[in-house]
Amino acid sequence: MYRSHTNGELRLSHVNEEVILAGWVQKVRDKGFMIWVDLRDRYGITQLIFDEERTAKEIIEQAQKLGREFVIQVKGTVIERQAKNPNLPTGEVEILVSELTILNDSKTPPFTIEDDTDGGEDVRMKYRYLDIRRNPVRENLIFRHKVAQEVRKFLSDDGFIEVETPYLIKSTPEGARDFVVPSRMNEGQFYALPQSPQTFKQLLMVGGMDKYFQIVKCFRDEDLRADRQPEFTQIDCEMAFIEQEDILNVFEGLTRHLLKEINGVEIGDFPRMLYDDAMRLYGNDKPDIRFGMEFGDLNAVTQHKDFGVFNNAETVIGIAVPGGNAYTRKEIDNIIKWVKRPQVGALGMIYSRCNDDGSFKSSVDKFYDQEDLAKWAEITGAKAGDLVCVLSGDTNKVRAQMSALRMELAERLGLRDPKVFAPLWVIDFPLLELDEETGHYHAMHHPFTSPKPGQIELLDSKPGEVKANAYDLVLNGNEIGGGSIRIHDKETQAIMLKHLGFSEEEAKAQFGFLMDAFEYGAPPHGGLAFGLDRLVSILGGQETIRDFIAFPKNNSGRDVMIDAPAPIDDEQLTELSLKLNLKS
Amino acid sequence: MYRSHTNGELRLSHVNEEVILAGWVQKVRDKGFMIWVDLRDRYGITQLIFDEERTAKEIIEQAQKLGREFVIQVKGTVIERQAKNPNLPTGEVEILVSELTILNDSKTPPFTIEDDTDGGEDVRMKYRYLDIRRNPVRENLIFRHKVAQEVRKFLSDDGFIEVETPYLIKSTPEGARDFVVPSRMNEGQFYALPQSPQTFKQLLMVGGMDKYFQIVKCFRDEDLRADRQPEFTQIDCEMAFIEQEDILNVFEGLTRHLLKEINGVEIGDFPRMLYDDAMRLYGNDKPDIRFGMEFGDLNAVTQHKDFGVFNNAETVIGIAVPGGNAYTRKEIDNIIKWVKRPQVGALGMIYSRCNDDGSFKSSVDKFYDQEDLAKWAEITGAKAGDLVCVLSGDTNKVRAQMSALRMELAERLGLRDPKVFAPLWVIDFPLLELDEETGHYHAMHHPFTSPKPGQIELLDSKPGEVKANAYDLVLNGNEIGGGSIRIHDKETQAIMLKHLGFSEEEAKAQFGFLMDAFEYGAPPHGGLAFGLDRLVSILGGQETIRDFIAFPKNNSGRDVMIDAPAPIDDEQLTELSLKLNLKS
Repeated sequence: MYRSHTNGELRLSHVNEEVILAGWVQKVRDKGFMIWVDLRDRYGITQLIFDEERTAKEIIEQAQKLGREFVIQVKGTVIERQAKNPNLPTGEVEILVSELTILNDSKTPPFTIEDDTDGGEDVRMKYRYLDIRRNPVRENLIFRHKVAQEVRKFLSDDGFIEVETPYLIKSTPEGARDFVVPSRMNEGQFYALPQSPQTFKQLLMVGGMDKYFQIVKCFRDEDLRADRQPEFTQIDCEMAFIEQEDILNVFEGLTRHLLKEINGVEIGDFPRMLYDDAMRLYGNDKPDIRFGMEFGDLNAVTQHKDFGVFNNAETVIGIAVPGGNAYTRKEIDNIIKWVKRPQVGALGMIYSRCNDDGSFKSSVDKFYDQEDLAKWAEITGAKAGDLVCVLSGDTNKVRAQMSALRMELAERLGLRDPKVFAPLWVIDFPLLELDEETGHYHAMHHPFTSPKPGQIELLDSKPGEVKANAYDLVLNGNEIGGGSIRIHDKETQAIMLKHLGFSEEEAKAQFGFLMDAFEYGAPPHGGLAFGLDRLVSILGGQETIRDFIAFPKNNSGRDVMIDAPAPIDDEQLTELSLKLNLKS
Repeated sequence: MYRSHTNGELRLSHVNEEVILAGWVQKVRDKGFMIWVDLRDRYGITQLIFDEERTAKEIIEQAQKLGREFVIQVKGTVIERQAKNPNLPTGEVEILVSELTILNDSKTPPFTIEDDTDGGEDVRMKYRYLDIRRNPVRENLIFRHKVAQEVRKFLSDDGFIEVETPYLIKSTPEGARDFVVPSRMNEGQFYALPQSPQTFKQLLMVGGMDKYFQIVKCFRDEDLRADRQPEFTQIDCEMAFIEQEDILNVFEGLTRHLLKEINGVEIGDFPRMLYDDAMRLYGNDKPDIRFGMEFGDLNAVTQHKDFGVFNNAETVIGIAVPGGNAYTRKEIDNIIKWVKRPQVGALGMIYSRCNDDGSFKSSVDKFYDQEDLAKWAEITGAKAGDLVCVLSGDTNKVRAQMSALRMELAERLGLRDPKVFAPLWVIDFPLLELDEETGHYHAMHHPFTSPKPGQIELLDSKPGEVKANAYDLVLNGNEIGGGSIRIHDKETQAIMLKHLGFSEEEAKAQFGFLMDAFEYGAPPHGGLAFGLDRLVSILGGQETIRDFIAFPKNNSGRDVMIDAPAPIDDEQLTELSLKLNLKS
């Protein structure tokens, strides 16, 4: 037996007990006549004491050799500490050591194993196993485990069955590139790793499984942006014989359960917002509604004056920045510079100060009088002391720009409190989305999403206006889940695929099995998938998903710890009937 | 709302309630003046009734159009049934239908959706979504879900943390071939899919996670035998600061919990058997101990007589077949034919009948007298009425042959009752195994398994005799789990890899990250992995794992439903810097 107790366990009530502990040496304080060692494991820290008077000489000598991160086992007696440490659950006791075994030594770690480490991202990733010894990283992983547990508990209690769907499937065009897996037994053929278990969960509904879920890894071979991982985890769900309302209720319940059990936050009914309204009021399909700053449409009150910039713009939008009149000229210039960054792309920004005396002072006083500016304030909801910021241009662009500005200012104003949770359903997403580059429409959610009843006829005439039974769950400005009611008849699916540019042959080759399945009594069904990595990081009040993944990959898709991917043998390639065809 | 109740829910207490049900048409009985429809969903079957006197004409007409597997929704009133069906939980009521909506029609399914279907394996796999509608298949999947749930509950309650390890890792030589995944972003390089999360779970132990588990998909590109799948699911576990005894206790506890919660069977302590004893007594490292028929070593009492076959044999083994004296000569010939099949490979079989009067009658009476045969009976434990079967030859071969015979006869005798559970630990496995073809030793468990204390010195002189801290959990003759105490210091790992034929460079390239990790305070650790597919099928009292996998692959590794794997575009290959290099 390596230990009788963990290092987080001992209290005053254990005094005089003989115990065996094991763990890592966190810290050694050697005063010559007395040595204290902080012994650490997953559960906490316990102080060990070796002293000249009470500890055998050879043990003292051994203790003097201990270094940081050595793995040791000690036998000793629990005694009351003289100088108690109220910050430590075990801080009232220490162990008077009578036996010491060094189980393993350690080189000096490349960074300090402490809550605030001196290690940078790169070195921490290379030595991720040491990084995981740090409390914050380990606690994140344990937090993730708890969230996953609660998800499984809630859904299982609600009659959902977790079904494992296959990982070696067939390449499907779901928006992103597939990772593929060459098959040795089927020469020249490839499996694909799933971007999601979408078709399988639909087939489970055709199969009468009724309520399915799975916490499952998914794969996308995308050029990685910050905080995207080539493999990520989804809470994947599907239900049969339901309408959108049923799904929203179930997953509202799940989210409420998590916020309560994990964060101790009680949330009432979730607000719902039409996609069109979200775009109009927040310029964004995942608005952060923890704070106001909704967009005000200033077209009517800014155009047809002499200000050409606004007159020539498709849209003029303003937002009220609470307390923004306190900004100095320099600070405002800084904001203007910020919106002009290529990442945001605005050509400029007009503003109007809302003075405490009820007067206004704008950067375009030449064109707009006090009455005009009062309307700006009214429409944006600006009060005395606020600042109205105005952007103009093409509707889609200016909305995106204003959305970025709104989030940036809220961040600066401390309005994005990670301890406040504001969930929101965004519903009635468009079915199709125009790819501005190719001029083609593609499925906004995926090709299996059903159009709203009666709208399928619009597919030919006004494809951009067709709305879908599709919904996203938004939490604090992040999409944490999304789903839709699916098509469940072959004809509609065929029409949809045709509109997405599939020939009849392509549709059959790719989705023949699904369309065939729809001919044998497919029930109405729909579902939703949560991004677990994102969900966990938001519930954990942190920004980056990487902090909640045990062994994440870097932005080039590499695992720098194990050094993967890596070349493979020619022999292995030959066996797979492949040859390299390098570009460089 | 598609339904107010499921089809398994309604009872006499619901009589007179108006309900809405939805589901599949299982059966239509049309008597002209009255139509009965069995409506099915995941939860059960409810009988619908349409009759001339109480149902509107147009609804009757609609009902007449219903076919098997149509998806319908009905509104109606719960009424008491005249002819009650005691075999159905809903058998006391039926629904007098007032509204009928056909949600989807169905072609005639390619096989009957009934517990005993007329569909063969191939057609059921192609239309697996229809197969899943059948109660036995669906119940198997729900059973699997329950087992996984109980596993997670037990381990979480015991302080284990489920940590997700990556799927895109590095090719490692763990015995079987890896599936590889070409990386587009890292030209000419490949990820591998994990054969198990072995190194990652060890790194989690180095990282102080202390108790880890994961229910996780693993991948092996092997030539598939019956009941092997290229992707399979493991319950993967690892613990730090433990000895073998701790691990056996925890997973004995888990198995006992499952047998109790899932099967309602209480099991006491699990017996333990040395690997050497298992081979000696059962010819097998996963003995089925639900019945006796242990091997008797007959060398001493059969050799040095005039029977050349035994004299020339390395080993002579006998087993007692209970009641086997009742076999006719023809039946015994049949058994002899069976052991001579190439799959078993024995050259012949000698037998001795144990007559009720205490006398014996053997096929080699010429060489062995009654006293000899009495010893055979004594050593094999044969009683009057039994049959002693004797095989001889090279030890390893004859053990394997006798093991096959023992299992076959037990099967014929009905001794392998799927409702009886006999778990067993087999411990002290050899560290290395001789590959008879190449003459090289390879790791019996895997290269990270630690030799028994003090035995590492034998690696050079007697590699085949070194025993490992390795153990298997056997249930009813199946290995359901296996594990070991791991090496946790760099030197031992290096020695081990050297003995497995790795050069220093190869060892560094493959496992450098793990050996590096061992230098920073690696704790003693060990673990175990259960095969979930196999475990579930045994707990479910069935033979084939395929019946417990939602979408299994066939023996060529194909998913015949979605038709994967499949060729991919040249464009996609080029993007991955690959070219086909077909052999044919």
